[in-house]
Amino acid sequence: MSILVVGSVFFDSIETPHGKVARALGGAATYFSVAASFFAPVQMVATVGDDFPQAEIDFLSRRGVDLSGLQKRPGRTGFWAGRYHEDMNQRDTLDLQLNVFADFKPQLAASHRAAQYVFLANIDPKLQAMVLDQLAAPGVVGCDTMNHWITGSRGDLEQLLGRVGILVINDEEARLLSGERNVVRAARRLLSMGPKRVLIKRGEYGVIQFSADSVFAVPAFPLEEVFDPTGAGDTFAGGFMGELARAGDASEVALRRAIVYGSVMASFVVEDFGMNRLRTLTPDDIERRYRQFVSLTDINGA
Amino acid sequence: MSILVVGSVFFDSIETPHGKVARALGGAATYFSVAASFFAPVQMVATVGDDFPQAEIDFLSRRGVDLSGLQKRPGRTGFWAGRYHEDMNQRDTLDLQLNVFADFKPQLAASHRAAQYVFLANIDPKLQAMVLDQLAAPGVVGCDTMNHWITGSRGDLEQLLGRVGILVINDEEARLLSGERNVVRAARRLLSMGPKRVLIKRGEYGVIQFSADSVFAVPAFPLEEVFDPTGAGDTFAGGFMGELARAGDASEVALRRAIVYGSVMASFVVEDFGMNRLRTLTPDDIERRYRQFVSLTDINGA
Repeated sequence: MSILVVGSVFFDSIETPHGKVARALGGAATYFSVAASFFAPVQMVATVGDDFPQAEIDFLSRRGVDLSGLQKRPGRTGFWAGRYHEDMNQRDTLDLQLNVFADFKPQLAASHRAAQYVFLANIDPKLQAMVLDQLAAPGVVGCDTMNHWITGSRGDLEQLLGRVGILVINDEEARLLSGERNVVRAARRLLSMGPKRVLIKRGEYGVIQFSADSVFAVPAFPLEEVFDPTGAGDTFAGGFMGELARAGDASEVALRRAIVYGSVMASFVVEDFGMNRLRTLTPDDIERRYRQFVSLTDINGA
Repeated sequence: MSILVVGSVFFDSIETPHGKVARALGGAATYFSVAASFFAPVQMVATVGDDFPQAEIDFLSRRGVDLSGLQKRPGRTGFWAGRYHEDMNQRDTLDLQLNVFADFKPQLAASHRAAQYVFLANIDPKLQAMVLDQLAAPGVVGCDTMNHWITGSRGDLEQLLGRVGILVINDEEARLLSGERNVVRAARRLLSMGPKRVLIKRGEYGVIQFSADSVFAVPAFPLEEVFDPTGAGDTFAGGFMGELARAGDASEVALRRAIVYGSVMASFVVEDFGMNRLRTLTPDDIERRYRQFVSLTDINGA
């Protein structure tokens, strides 16, 4: 099964305690697509400016990402610059230029409308809803959001949550959206807003998934060095949705395996700047770390 | 196998966002002993004042705790008062009176010296070493410590770490003792100080165990309400060492199961003030939550 993702493609200038990089390929849809492409064919709907390099188009195409939904428009590609603190859970935005992304309106081609696996990356919930309006009969719909929309577009976001199956959100956003500090209460409140599953990303502490009748928690893969956390959440979502699409299954067991694959992908992307690590990653690397992850978490393991 | 624990018995006055309690039974050795008593016989070495109520002696005895090493001395039992913030990871100490605990010198009776499973709860590392000096040939020795000793008695503590097998410590202490912010680097550094295993307690995010050639991580059991976190770490240690002693085994598999039992015990103790929840807990409660814990963490579960 293929996956449709709608979201941002950006250039990111990033400073971490380990160094810096200028205008690296970034954006939620990009991280998602590249991660998911290791598991299933991906259709990306996004917009870039006329400055977007052919080399990156070629990279995404080689990864099997269908770019027929990538609108190239006059102007510049979106740009973000940020600096991480010594504690890399903290970062400051130094610059944000939406550029062509400011006028992004997702238009789905006929070839996109039959999508069964859909991920609405973090964009205006009005645009996320516009995507759903154009889909024929999506099977598994995941979405992300951020503080900006939670505080500024709560009504739109709440309407959207009534239409998605899986909410993928970080712990701070979960607290803000639910009004609950405790993660269990926060998840129960978010489930009451519509999604059948809520996945809460806890950074270095892993992911916890809630449904009406189950809870599943995994730690993050322990790394000696987190080089650059940018894109980890979107890469998690890409691995997660990618594995669901590969399996063609959204049962509890399939979801748990997909959460581990998402965690594995996120553990790779933070090992280098931007998505550099994903450019050299192999399926063998992924399977090896998946097995390490099983051993890391297996109560009856040795 | 029985377990020997050496540490503090205190009264605690506790305020949390959920209410407050005055002079509740507390202290590291107490939480440890009561938790461990669900798994194996416990010998407690500690000191209390002549104000210590017979009712609490009776409670501990009913739990099968051997109190022949509990020195009752003229004066008052140690006392701590603290207040938790809305974010219960933060607390302020309002009062601390060591009382008879200030002169505590652990003296082991002949019946204690053959102990195979030993836990050195958080006390002056000089006193922890004094306990080891009195033991014949301990098999499994765990220890805890705190910021006070890490900064004030580092030399004594480092000497002690060369003599213990399992260091049980929280994440903040692990960072302080190792000088490393990253949990993997911190653990590697702590392992280089002597212990064969380092267990890092991460509060609501669970526990991660490191040895030279393995890593094991479990989340905390997700609770809708943490009523009072006091004693959670010592209760974890009690369940952990208790299960090791019950199994009579310190293999990787046994350690993993013991970490889960420790986590289960900690998840109960925080459900009520002080150790109230442990007073009504049953072995069935423990086994039921252990099974829930397995389901919570099982990648192949449903």
